[in-house]
Amino acid sequence: MIRYALAASAVCLACPALAQDLSTGTWIDLTHTLNEEAVFWPTAEMFEQETVAEGETEGGYYYSAYKFSASEHGGTHLDAPIHFAEGGDSADEVPIERLIGPAFVIDVTAQAAEDVDYRVTAADIEAFEAEHGEIPEGAIVLLNTGRAGLYPDREQYMGTAARGADAVADLHFPGLGEDGAALLVERGIGAVGLDTPSIDYGQSTDFAAHVELMTNGIPAFENVADMSALPPTGAFVVALPVKMEGGSGGPLRIVAHLPE
Amino acid sequence: MIRYALAASAVCLACPALAQDLSTGTWIDLTHTLNEEAVFWPTAEMFEQETVAEGETEGGYYYSAYKFSASEHGGTHLDAPIHFAEGGDSADEVPIERLIGPAFVIDVTAQAAEDVDYRVTAADIEAFEAEHGEIPEGAIVLLNTGRAGLYPDREQYMGTAARGADAVADLHFPGLGEDGAALLVERGIGAVGLDTPSIDYGQSTDFAAHVELMTNGIPAFENVADMSALPPTGAFVVALPVKMEGGSGGPLRIVAHLPE
Ligand SMILES: [Zn+2]
Ligand SMILES: [Zn+2]
Repeated sequence: MIRYALAASAVCLACPALAQDLSTGTWIDLTHTLNEEAVFWPTAEMFEQETVAEGETEGGYYYSAYKFSASEHGGTHLDAPIHFAEGGDSADEVPIERLIGPAFVIDVTAQAAEDVDYRVTAADIEAFEAEHGEIPEGAIVLLNTGRAGLYPDREQYMGTAARGADAVADLHFPGLGEDGAALLVERGIGAVGLDTPSIDYGQSTDFAAHVELMTNGIPAFENVADMSALPPTGAFVVALPVKMEGGSGGPLRIVAHLPE
Repeated sequence: MIRYALAASAVCLACPALAQDLSTGTWIDLTHTLNEEAVFWPTAEMFEQETVAEGETEGGYYYSAYKFSASEHGGTHLDAPIHFAEGGDSADEVPIERLIGPAFVIDVTAQAAEDVDYRVTAADIEAFEAEHGEIPEGAIVLLNTGRAGLYPDREQYMGTAARGADAVADLHFPGLGEDGAALLVERGIGAVGLDTPSIDYGQSTDFAAHVELMTNGIPAFENVADMSALPPTGAFVVALPVKMEGGSGGPLRIVAHLPE
């Protein structure tokens, strides 16, 4: 699946929506702060931070430094294709062009409020397109379930605050359905993100959306922060992950630019 | 030092150089891949990565996941102001507007080739300005010492491959001098980066450039990758760090956009 065929690292030349004047407008941070409260999968090691130095030094200057550890899939983070696709791009290999592009924000707040296990369907995406036009190649699709405000209260946000393998069966949060994922693959999007812990809904056991997206080279952004300030179209997303060699994902800084 | 006074998160309205059409052109990754070879300070814990899962699952799908640990200041990374300035912005607090902006790339390859302990001076910066115009507020200044290609060979890149406190005296690499840092503060730049392990040269004991920059709210990017493809002016930098709460720095993904 070559999206940018005209030149090795040319930006989607067919996307007029990519033209954005960054000299005016505002930046919105769509990233949860990474700390020891950050939401991780019940089986995954959480983020830990330790002080190495903090205070005045003998040299007369102030100095602070810390160290940290975590599993890859917590807080606002990237799922690289290799997370669910053998031989897929790892965190360091995902092309930059996939991670930077025009935002298409699909509001499923109402559906998710009614059904915590809701899966965004192809019909939801087509309804969005009927109003806003077809989602173009290279688009960054963001699913707004309206649940970012529950983060990092794990009980509220993902159905359980329990840790360990037994807690997985109690996970409840919305995700992207398999037919929705297939339609996004068809559209040739750059990446898809949402404001829940996983692109598959909490009760998933086959991780069908992950598999559909990632075997087609499409990365996902999970635990994205509140996107209610974004219009359905017209914003521009820059999502840069840590360039971890061979990583299946990892911490992501995702910001959106709003034109004036 | 309020750079963007017109609105809380307005982008530098006085910077015509910020206007960049992202619909054409190319992206260049200025980030070294983060792996167990990544260059850290001799006294700081290096990056470690551990496999959590890798292979076919009982569910019939492929799955891989890893975990990692590191100190903040290794590989291509951010120095947040709080690293050397009590009460300064931490990694999660550095305004996005400081990290995104027009690049001004100062070539000191010749000076660094002649003197591994070279410090970029105010005169070097003024010579650049005489040719390319005054560096504007909000600029991302990149110092090209020509040494990114030596990374991650620590002996070649930083003067010693030894680890521990005794190795610090053997560090040799170029940096930014105190008068150069002061001039960049005067210009009101957004951030400054370079292709060595530290914004202060390897033999520094007072870390004068760090102190000058960071007490004035200016973050630094260290171990930036090869910037030889960038023109002196006209490129546009996006540098997004991990949003670590209270962090004095941390992994940075830095990319540059070149207009067509
Ligand atoms: Zn994940
Ligand atoms: Zn540093």
